[in-house]
Amino acid sequence: MKSTILSRRDLDFLLYEWLDVEKLTTLDRFTEHSRETFDGVLDLCEQLATRYFAPHNKLSDANEPTFDGQAVTLIPDVKEAWDAFAAADLIAMGMDAEIGGAQLPATVAQAAFAWISAANVSTSGYLMLTIANANLLARFGSAEQIETFVKPMLAGRFSGTMALSETQAGSSLADITTRAEPQADGSYRLFGSKMWISGAEHELTENIVNLVLAKIPGGPAGTKGISLFIVPKFLADGTRNGVAISGLNHKMGQRGITNTVLNFDGAVGYLVGEPHRGIVYMFHMMNEARLGVGMGAVALGYTGYLKSLEYARERPQGRPLGVKDPSTPQVPIIEHADVKRMLLAQKAYVEGGLALALYCAKLVDTDDTAVLDILTPVAKSWPSQWCVEANSLAIQVHGGYGYTREYDVEQHYRDNRLNPIHEGTHGIQSLDLLGRKVTQNGGAGLAALGERIAATVSRATGAAPELAAQLDASWQRLVAVTGAMFASGDVEAAMANSAVYLEAFGHIVVAWIWLEQYLAAEGRTGDFYDGKRQAARYFFRYELPKTAPQLDLLESLDRTTLEMRDNWF
Amino acid sequence: MKSTILSRRDLDFLLYEWLDVEKLTTLDRFTEHSRETFDGVLDLCEQLATRYFAPHNKLSDANEPTFDGQAVTLIPDVKEAWDAFAAADLIAMGMDAEIGGAQLPATVAQAAFAWISAANVSTSGYLMLTIANANLLARFGSAEQIETFVKPMLAGRFSGTMALSETQAGSSLADITTRAEPQADGSYRLFGSKMWISGAEHELTENIVNLVLAKIPGGPAGTKGISLFIVPKFLADGTRNGVAISGLNHKMGQRGITNTVLNFDGAVGYLVGEPHRGIVYMFHMMNEARLGVGMGAVALGYTGYLKSLEYARERPQGRPLGVKDPSTPQVPIIEHADVKRMLLAQKAYVEGGLALALYCAKLVDTDDTAVLDILTPVAKSWPSQWCVEANSLAIQVHGGYGYTREYDVEQHYRDNRLNPIHEGTHGIQSLDLLGRKVTQNGGAGLAALGERIAATVSRATGAAPELAAQLDASWQRLVAVTGAMFASGDVEAAMANSAVYLEAFGHIVVAWIWLEQYLAAEGRTGDFYDGKRQAARYFFRYELPKTAPQLDLLESLDRTTLEMRDNWF
Repeated sequence: MKSTILSRRDLDFLLYEWLDVEKLTTLDRFTEHSRETFDGVLDLCEQLATRYFAPHNKLSDANEPTFDGQAVTLIPDVKEAWDAFAAADLIAMGMDAEIGGAQLPATVAQAAFAWISAANVSTSGYLMLTIANANLLARFGSAEQIETFVKPMLAGRFSGTMALSETQAGSSLADITTRAEPQADGSYRLFGSKMWISGAEHELTENIVNLVLAKIPGGPAGTKGISLFIVPKFLADGTRNGVAISGLNHKMGQRGITNTVLNFDGAVGYLVGEPHRGIVYMFHMMNEARLGVGMGAVALGYTGYLKSLEYARERPQGRPLGVKDPSTPQVPIIEHADVKRMLLAQKAYVEGGLALALYCAKLVDTDDTAVLDILTPVAKSWPSQWCVEANSLAIQVHGGYGYTREYDVEQHYRDNRLNPIHEGTHGIQSLDLLGRKVTQNGGAGLAALGERIAATVSRATGAAPELAAQLDASWQRLVAVTGAMFASGDVEAAMANSAVYLEAFGHIVVAWIWLEQYLAAEGRTGDFYDGKRQAARYFFRYELPKTAPQLDLLESLDRTTLEMRDNWF
Repeated sequence: MKSTILSRRDLDFLLYEWLDVEKLTTLDRFTEHSRETFDGVLDLCEQLATRYFAPHNKLSDANEPTFDGQAVTLIPDVKEAWDAFAAADLIAMGMDAEIGGAQLPATVAQAAFAWISAANVSTSGYLMLTIANANLLARFGSAEQIETFVKPMLAGRFSGTMALSETQAGSSLADITTRAEPQADGSYRLFGSKMWISGAEHELTENIVNLVLAKIPGGPAGTKGISLFIVPKFLADGTRNGVAISGLNHKMGQRGITNTVLNFDGAVGYLVGEPHRGIVYMFHMMNEARLGVGMGAVALGYTGYLKSLEYARERPQGRPLGVKDPSTPQVPIIEHADVKRMLLAQKAYVEGGLALALYCAKLVDTDDTAVLDILTPVAKSWPSQWCVEANSLAIQVHGGYGYTREYDVEQHYRDNRLNPIHEGTHGIQSLDLLGRKVTQNGGAGLAALGERIAATVSRATGAAPELAAQLDASWQRLVAVTGAMFASGDVEAAMANSAVYLEAFGHIVVAWIWLEQYLAAEGRTGDFYDGKRQAARYFFRYELPKTAPQLDLLESLDRTTLEMRDNWF
């Protein structure tokens, strides 16, 4: 029986037949690796996902963490899953060998971790935060901090959080007010409170390593005065630090992971790196986290797709068009054109998203920062939009059953709806893309991406001339519109529709990713490859044309939203 | 303080300044009425919604009905709301005076009931089902059935359900197997079970009147052999009838209303009307229910819009474009262009949806069946799609807060997601539109709608020439594409993209409805009217152009979904 968590066949295609990750082993960092080690970790994560993570996904949704004023209680299955993952030495799978990591390529580590996210996004959240935290400290922390905090995290004894936002400062980090008072011994005392802190309290691990943004009094205003601190739950002598939660947030989805206000009442903190550089360090993590959010959105979209596909094959309902005789048997709903449309759309979104996410992971492995920088907001936001839509279609394929908690898909939809919000909202991503990434370094990122796309178009002119021409025209139009927007000098109008820009940009990028997949399937026969070709056609026929009116709107420098006044609402 | 349930100002505009419902009082049926009585019922429903329905909306979501094997327990607030609504004689507000109704126009009754739905969709569901049930029986039931069942429903002593679907027969009613065995006394005994029955068990009322589709053995196969029965929970002598639930469905949203399998074990049933005519009677109710679903979707979209608007006005975050100085105060997020876009989109969806729903209600009042028939699938599906999108945007405006159950909008999103599924899925509506409504009576419905649109375009050429031209072109294109699809003779390809057709059709219809509103605001000054004009512009600039690629796709008679094979997925 095929897994409904993810498709190993698709992962193998993307990793080995398209991205050729085996070639990464020629890079110094990955020489110890081979297809065998890659396969091993993919196998292992599939097994762990199936055995430890998927079985309690609904259970932890229905049984949220509780807080009695002292401790948080999780269902025991979460700890079993955490322990199994840690025992397999997977927390450090992507990290440097010198601190105990397996130094796997990010491409493989992301693909492997996608099994875990797809099986149980809440439980995987504790791991993902710990990995991101450890990565950041491994890069910017001192040797002592690595020894004291990172190594226990890699062993699964400690876990990590990221504490950036405050109730009055979500998208606007410049406005945080948590302060860190320097102490004579070189440590700091933190005062204030943070909001939306996932994993901030639980008893999964001996200690929790909170990474906290705070301001040292007397520093510069705004983001330039923000420093980064380690604020552990327990101090080295075993005493409780002055960091505590006052309750838990109750969310629409992702209910299995604690999320809460975290209060600092003179909590001891240790500066990471230099003062006032916190935002720079944190953005390093944030970029990684944004790619992770995108992959998480894909994972939820993917598992919903597979479940609705299985349902559509098994559920008899209705008859083929034109057959009215009620004495004939009903057919499985997958035979209805509209159900196929909903499945094809999901396939196009989730396989397109997975390919984009893995492409970006490979850019990390190959240090291809120009293209990676410009694709990061897309890799975060596109799956967060379209894989939620995939989850909605998965519900729709299930009909009334999909709306019940008896099936899985409604939870995936609820869980996935967080992704356009956290780690920079859809709007913030759009400002990052249009207001920063498109223009920075004289437009080098856009140019570099354009070269990649042109190369794909060029390779496709023989095998898929129509798709190649359509992509080329869309990309050229996007570049022309982008130029016209900035040439207008009306920055306000240009930026006003940044979200529309992000969406058009994203669809064109994913069309390119689909053409890449089409080419990777070129010359191969069999159902799997026919499916890839058909999904690519679907994307070019049903999806890519949506960008034409978006680009028209952008080109017109429409001022409708700018002209709208508060009191007209 | 303005209500965040619905906008009375908008309702007054639509009812009195646009639809001119006062003129309905010149019709025989409504001569007893006046603006005063209309306003009275609108006031009353707003008050009841505010006092009895809104306060327990979250409570009943968090405290679902429970079933102990014998009885279902609801939170007591549901009964208080039910009783208050019944005591105000509102259950019969749209019904004939001769059976105790207030004979209000559907337009006004729908507008008034929208307050109740927006405040609490689950609790309002018990009422809506009872009203639909009573309407059906009042029309097709015998005098005795009206006396025995309808009158107690109108008094709020009994409640009603609609039992159509079965586990193996959802979209395909032809396949129901519940059977009704005739008895010597003229009654029937029912055997089988029904699925998805809302309001099927509770203790809100003395009795529950189930309207049940079943087959009398020996009748024709398929839908032509379906009859309609009244199956009360309690028989006239007070004994329990053989109809019982075996548990409750647990849903993503609309958690406050019971929904369940309903089993018939020799339950006594009374035939409604003639044998084998059940589907005809039920479709009368179904059309009304589809309009009701559309209005319910609007109501949830609308309240989410108002709540996100209030939040956007109060939430300071970030600074205007170009202001980098962190010492300047943060601005309310409504000042950001992208937030305005999300609010304008919601305004365009919910006010467009409300106007469409009320327009259709007026078609009921004026017996304008040709236009009503073709608009019914649109009035059901368009708000069910776009007002869910509005709820998603309402969450997005709230940022992380919107994802928590502390705020209301996540519940609206969950509650609203049912609407594209029940009373005929999105796909079923699209088959109804393209496969039936567009062609029936030689295309009379399409022609009649085209005349209305042409008249609006003609009236708008002076006041809004650009919008008029854009609507006219879109409609002409739709008509041309429709013709080409049928002229092709490739019915399979034409029907394969029925859902895309429904969506393009819907957007063009709503553009027309927006142009109507624009004209109704013509020559009037003030914030309210400026807002209407700006939302109309928004719809024409951001939304209507989305139909161009959809119509291209339809015209191409694309076969991508038809060519897709099961084993390619």
